[in-house]
Amino acid sequence: MIDPERLSLNLMTVDHWSLPEAVDHCATAGIGLVAPWRHQLAPDSARVIREACLEVSSLCRGGFFTSPGADDDNRRAVEEAAALGAPVLVLVCGPPTSPDLRAARATIAAGIERLLPFAADHGVRLGIEPLHPMMIGERSAIVSLGEALALARTFPDPAHVGIVLDAYHVFWDARLEDELAGAEGLIASYHVSDWLVPTTDLLAGRGLMGDGIIDLPHIGALVEATGYDGPVEVEVINPALAEREPQELLADIRTRFARS
Amino acid sequence: MIDPERLSLNLMTVDHWSLPEAVDHCATAGIGLVAPWRHQLAPDSARVIREACLEVSSLCRGGFFTSPGADDDNRRAVEEAAALGAPVLVLVCGPPTSPDLRAARATIAAGIERLLPFAADHGVRLGIEPLHPMMIGERSAIVSLGEALALARTFPDPAHVGIVLDAYHVFWDARLEDELAGAEGLIASYHVSDWLVPTTDLLAGRGLMGDGIIDLPHIGALVEATGYDGPVEVEVINPALAEREPQELLADIRTRFARS
Repeated sequence: MIDPERLSLNLMTVDHWSLPEAVDHCATAGIGLVAPWRHQLAPDSARVIREACLEVSSLCRGGFFTSPGADDDNRRAVEEAAALGAPVLVLVCGPPTSPDLRAARATIAAGIERLLPFAADHGVRLGIEPLHPMMIGERSAIVSLGEALALARTFPDPAHVGIVLDAYHVFWDARLEDELAGAEGLIASYHVSDWLVPTTDLLAGRGLMGDGIIDLPHIGALVEATGYDGPVEVEVINPALAEREPQELLADIRTRFARS
Repeated sequence: MIDPERLSLNLMTVDHWSLPEAVDHCATAGIGLVAPWRHQLAPDSARVIREACLEVSSLCRGGFFTSPGADDDNRRAVEEAAALGAPVLVLVCGPPTSPDLRAARATIAAGIERLLPFAADHGVRLGIEPLHPMMIGERSAIVSLGEALALARTFPDPAHVGIVLDAYHVFWDARLEDELAGAEGLIASYHVSDWLVPTTDLLAGRGLMGDGIIDLPHIGALVEATGYDGPVEVEVINPALAEREPQELLADIRTRFARS
């Protein structure tokens, strides 16, 4: 069982709330950590979060290294993460721009290498997130745990770059146990949700923990064995959650988190 | 460029046609190979195909080893394949019945082992098809090329069991080149289609070759390098194809096949 104090609410789960609403609801529910997305930020966000005595587990997202203007935008993302006190910037690395996936992966590696000194100077760790392979066309050419780990290992200091492990994106992988057995010190953040059967939407069809087929206790134990003892983000992207009463939803999330 | 004579039409591409219609259209279009699905078969199917001077490249599908009654049904599938003269029975291995994916994979391995002598006696090679990871919940716990190859290698004679490589299911895999480099003699069938961006449907959102982001010439060359020189099935599952005029569609498929 994961310590309930490690629960962080990834705010994409409640993207229908403003950031001040989310902060207020979390504080009321006794959730001490949040992970905002950049589009949710306003100039006073750091103050709003601090005054509610919450902490930020990560900022989502930088990346998209295969797009024009990525470098400038990623430096802004690092600055925003630093301003929030977010220890990790989640990298969604960007889709291929041609059928040559190896070229896309090389572009991504080069982009991370350029960003890394700036991020390190700001005290922000970069977290390479392998996405589910079904998201390759729109979001990321990095679609397996193994390649994310291999990419992270190309950089000398794991304190500056690691991986973001989201159970939803990687649970299907027959190499999960072997890859995580070699991932000590490389996990920058751990995310949980569940894979619904059937899954009807490639982006927004995720389930709350316990409603799907992911063996979260098993994956959690594998993560624990790597030495990772930081925040565990609940990131459930599903528009149906917008219909739930805030405190009822957060209480449900806490209960499910305790079981997973 | 793949020899046009190797084109086989997987009949799920034209599931809106009856099998006799499909056979007739293929014969007219100069396509000499077809790959039917079991639900398309009737008692006279073998005769209809033979009288049109077509050959069968594979029968889809056996598998679903995690479901009750799988053994009986799979033996029937082998008999149907043998009756059609299909050299390969495609195995869609079945989804997990609990979050324990390793248990599901062990059940699948045991099911193949039980089926294998019966299939070998009938001269039908079993083809383990790794599906795209997005299909794990409904269709197969075998969702990567590496695990399909590893599973096939657990059996002593590759002439009796190999893998079915569908570019759509595996193109995203960063290990594709390495895995195929070790796959000599293990490919029982090769399927092509394309991954559309955006992909809007998890099952029926496939594209015709050339409309998506799969590097088919690259994957084709990797397959060729394993020594595979058998039929190449065009399997495009997309309801939009039902609106196309038959000979226009088949001519388009032949043209795209020649380019991919």
